[in-house]
Formats: sequence, C-alpha cells, structure tokens
Amino acid sequence: MAGPETGIDVGNQIGGSAAGSVAGLIAHGGNLTRARALFPHAPEHWIDLSTGISPYSYPHSPIPGNAFSRLPEPASAQRLKEIAANAYGAPSAAHVAAGPGTQILLPIVAGLLGGAAVSRAGVLSPIYAGHARAARLAGFEVIETDDLDRLADMQLAVIVNPNNPTGRIVPKSDLLALAAAMRAKGGLLVVDEAFMDVSEAESVAGTVDQGGLVVLRSFGKFYGMAGLRLGFATTHPSVVETIEGRLGPWAVSGPALHVAGEALADRDWQQSMRTNLKRDAARLDGLLAAARIPVFGGTSLFRFIRDRRAQALFQHLGERGIITRRFEERQDDLRIGLPGDADWMRLEEALKTI
Amino acid sequence: MAGPETGIDVGNQIGGSAAGSVAGLIAHGGNLTRARALFPHAPEHWIDLSTGISPYSYPHSPIPGNAFSRLPEPASAQRLKEIAANAYGAPSAAHVAAGPGTQILLPIVAGLLGGAAVSRAGVLSPIYAGHARAARLAGFEVIETDDLDRLADMQLAVIVNPNNPTGRIVPKSDLLALAAAMRAKGGLLVVDEAFMDVSEAESVAGTVDQGGLVVLRSFGKFYGMAGLRLGFATTHPSVVETIEGRLGPWAVSGPALHVAGEALADRDWQQSMRTNLKRDAARLDGLLAAARIPVFGGTSLFRFIRDRRAQALFQHLGERGIITRRFEERQDDLRIGLPGDADWMRLEEALKTI
Repeated sequence: MAGPETGIDVGNQIGGSAAGSVAGLIAHGGNLTRARALFPHAPEHWIDLSTGISPYSYPHSPIPGNAFSRLPEPASAQRLKEIAANAYGAPSAAHVAAGPGTQILLPIVAGLLGGAAVSRAGVLSPIYAGHARAARLAGFEVIETDDLDRLADMQLAVIVNPNNPTGRIVPKSDLLALAAAMRAKGGLLVVDEAFMDVSEAESVAGTVDQGGLVVLRSFGKFYGMAGLRLGFATTHPSVVETIEGRLGPWAVSGPALHVAGEALADRDWQQSMRTNLKRDAARLDGLLAAARIPVFGGTSLFRFIRDRRAQALFQHLGERGIITRRFEERQDDLRIGLPGDADWMRLEEALKTI
Repeated sequence: MAGPETGIDVGNQIGGSAAGSVAGLIAHGGNLTRARALFPHAPEHWIDLSTGISPYSYPHSPIPGNAFSRLPEPASAQRLKEIAANAYGAPSAAHVAAGPGTQILLPIVAGLLGGAAVSRAGVLSPIYAGHARAARLAGFEVIETDDLDRLADMQLAVIVNPNNPTGRIVPKSDLLALAAAMRAKGGLLVVDEAFMDVSEAESVAGTVDQGGLVVLRSFGKFYGMAGLRLGFATTHPSVVETIEGRLGPWAVSGPALHVAGEALADRDWQQSMRTNLKRDAARLDGLLAAARIPVFGGTSLFRFIRDRRAQALFQHLGERGIITRRFEERQDDLRIGLPGDADWMRLEEALKTI
C-alpha cells in the first residue's frame, strides 16, 4: 500500500468522474491531481495555494488509539459542542450541531424549510459553489446576486461572511435585519462564517436563538486540519435537533473529537495564530505588490486578485509548481492561499519573474 | 485537555439530550457514560461488550500528517472506491459511494425514492433501530415484520443480513427475488451487510447493477475502527451519483482514506482475522455454555441470547464492570460482543458466579 508520503496527495490512477476533464479547470481548491494534469512539466513537490486552509496545523496531543477503535462516546460529542459554543459565541451547546465537515451540512441546512418546491433561494455572489448546489438539491430556484437587499425577497438566503473569495464583509446590523425579515415570513438566513476566525467581521452566532438563522463554522481552515472533516451549524435548538436527526449518531469521528476538543479551547494558540496569519498575509501582499499585482480583497487565510492578468499569473505560477485557485466563470479572479514556511522562497522567486 | 487515556471514553460533564435518562437504558452500544450511570459501583476500567465492533484494530501504517491537514484528494477517494469495490465484490468503483459512517448514509438512502409521502417501508425485524428511524425521516410509514414475504408489498424494504442481533441469514436467492420485485415496481431494497465480513451469508453487492438495490457495508466493525467513521453504499452508478451529491465533496476524511485503503486490500489479514474471530466467538460460547446460558444466534463479532435470564445477566455483568447490549423492547434479548485479549479472564470470572 501507499507509504506515509504518498498516502493522500498522490493519485496516478484515476477513473470515472474524479478524473473529469482537464479543461474543466480546478472546480475546488486542493486538487493536486488536476494541478499535475494541467501542468505536467511543473516540478514536484507542489505548493498548494489553491485553498484557504492554514499552512499551520494545530499542534494537538497524540490521538489515543481508542479514538480510532471505539465508537465516539456521546458524552465526548456533547463536550465538544460545549467547547464549540464557547469558541464560536453560540448561546449554548444546545445551539450547536456538529458534523463531518461543513460540506455535508449544506444540503441538510438548505433542506430545513422542507418541500418548498417553487421557492427561491438567493445567494450573495460571488459565492462558494456548494451553496447554490445545496439549495438546488433542496428544490429551490437559485438566484445569484451581489445585492444584499434582493435577498430579503427569497425564502432562503445564503451569505458567506467574510466572503470567499472577495473578503467582502456584511455588517452585523444588516445580517440581523435580514434574519428578522426571514424569520417573520418563515424563511431562513444561512450565514457561512467559514473564515470568521481570521476576520474583522462580527459573528452572528450569538443571535441564533431568535430563529430564522443558521450560522456555519468550519473547523479545518483556521486550524489547518481540513482532512479531519469537521464543521458546525449554530442555530435554534429545535433546528439543531432536526440537523442531528439527519446526521444520526456518531457524526463526528473520534480523531476529530480529540483534536477539536483541544484546539477550540486553546485561546492562546488562536490569538497568536491570528497574528501569524495576518503577518503572513501582509508578506504575501508585499510579494504581490513587488510584482505590481494589486490585491483586491481577501482574508488573512487568502488574498484575492481581480485583474486582467489573473489567468497569466495562474499559468506562470502553475508552470513553477505553485497552484492557485481560478474561477471558471470569472476570468479576472484569482485566489491565492498562504504558503508554509518552507515554501515562501519559491513563491517569491516565481513572482519575481512574471 | 484530556490525556491520551481519557480523550474519548470518559465523560463526567454531560448536558442536554446526550445525558438522557438512565432509565432509558442503552439506546446504542458503546456508551460507557450510560454504563457508568447504570452501574455506579462497578470497577473501572469497563469492558465494553455492548457493540459488535472487533476488539482487534487493523494494524495500519502511521497516518501521514497531510491526511489530517489537507483536504482529501479526490483521486485518493476514487482509489478507495476501487479498493472497496474489489473487497466487497461490487461490479466497479462506479457502483460504490463512500461516506463518513453508514449511519449518515441511512437517511440519504431511505430518501432515494423521494417524496413518497404515503408509502410504506418494511423492515425485517428485529432490526437496528436506525433503519426505521431513517425511513420515517424520509416520510415512510414503517412496518416492522419478521415475515420476509410481507416486504414485497412495500415501496422500501430493509434487511440486515446477517441480522443484528439475531444472526439470522436471508438466502441470496430470496434477496435477489425481492430486489427484482422491488425493481419491477420502482421500489427499493436495502440490504445492510454490516456484519457480512464475518458471516457465512452471501453478499448481494455483486448484483447491484440491475437496480432497485442498495447494499450497505460498514468499515469500522470488522476492522475494529469504529471511531474513524467510514461506510459504503454499493448500488447502481446513477444512484451512487445521487448519494454522492448529498454527501458533497470530501465526504471521507484523510485518516479514513489512509487506513481503509490499506485494510480493505489486505486479504491475508482479513482471512486470518476471520479465523481469529471465529475462535473467539467459540470461546465465548464455551464460557456461556459453562454458565448454562444457551446461545440463540449471532455472528463471529457478537453472540445473541434469547433467554429469560437476559436481564439478570445484564445486571450481573454490569455490576462487575462488563457492559452488554440489552434491548428495551425485548426483555429476553441480550447481545454480547467479544472481549479483547486482556479482558477474557474477567469475563470468565464474572460468568462463573452467575
């Protein structure tokens, strides 16, 4: 079988839909197999800047064997919800549902309104594609708009705050007003706070008890643990019960309970990591500025470029084994994540020659 | 934070629904917090025989750090499906959907027929409670029956084969006939083969291409890795696509991809483990026979007792720190899993004094 260095990120044998079309670009970040197909002559190893996942993994204590072997203890899952409620500012553990990644929560959350076959969902654009997909799965007609006011006309409204990839921040007051409007008509506002950990934006997780609102939090990005698969929905306790009913028992793995139980309670690490990531993002800004590439927006976990040279930059970096995130539907957009400590020099060299 | 020995299976702080009522018995196996509440004077450590999970964890190679830190590579997920198709006898990788545990697949699979609001689902009783729950979530009226022939009258039929807890085996020919009947009327047969790895029963995973059939396989039980959360649905490729659409990308964690990629391909280990578990089950039979407790059925991963002394046995063992699985609705039933190597002596002593 695959050895330690090749277990995850190497894939020479591809079949079926996973291979897809090389021309289909990189539909999600973090797909090195596609990167290799796009740039077959690029040097290994690849520097993956195609995601917004932190290059610094949380330094958890060793995961005990029984975290893998035993069914996750319900009391441990409950304890994680208490820690998560504290970390995310939710009113209580009863306001928190935990699942194996935010992805799997999206169709469940979009389906909460139930049977609304002819209803419309509005997503604040540009937006992570998974939200529109989940709303369509739930039977909604999906309208993409960058006009916040239009969302109030929908039954389901989805906002990523801060936005991925632009970094746009929607003020808390606007979100609360929209949540109230949705609540008044039996609709639902979903606020995806996947990058809230590194943002100046204000979370609305503390307001979910009023109803009409689901706040999503992603564990893997800020803690550099995306492979663990862990995400949270913060919402009214009755909605938490519905979500947990869909997830069933033991939704969170033993390793995730162990790692997140430590990480979400570690305020010192969180605080210093925010400082580190801010410093790294500024360093990236510096490299881009030296290459005369203006930064349009972003968060401390990624920078966002809206520039007519976006495709050329994607190509230039890709040929040098540095993969970034482009967007099929918007040719001028490019998202660049943060490199790990060992990879800055290669990025700097690559940006010097553009 | 909790140390290595207490990270998962200790829970002193319980709140909300996870605590539940002690009188509510043990609704699922593997809940040591409830065991402690039921038997506060029992000695630590607990011997947990309340599940059908193997006491022997698969000896995988070290999990590389990037399995935790990076998003699982789509090519790795595809490779796991290929390995799983081989291991489970599915026609191809395209016939396999992988998710974070079989539990989370149940409502998705029960919902495949879609919007069948007044339809009936039949589950072959006794059955794991999660199946009836999932069918109700999907809008079905659920009929529990031990009459195989009645299932053909339903839109959705669910059979656990071999049965948990009784060990009853439904012949492959009967399953194929039922699948054909379901297919003919646009219904669906779900065969949960969670314990097929240790059974003389014949899998129907190889027949799913004909449609009308979903076969579920559980990774954690046979490989002693229940905390990892990994389960498979084997079915027609078009149904696989629907299931994967619900799961979204990155449904299987990096650690699960690593461990299962090795374990499912390791035929030597599988074969010798079947022998070991058979030996252990026979050893358990011997201890029970010496205590004049007849074994009604089971598989090599658990034994099933149907006897008027079931509750007394549950109590007797519980007071000695050995938790078994009783069933609220059937007072004479008790399921006993296999102890680990170090725990046989305590079980033997406990059974001597009943």
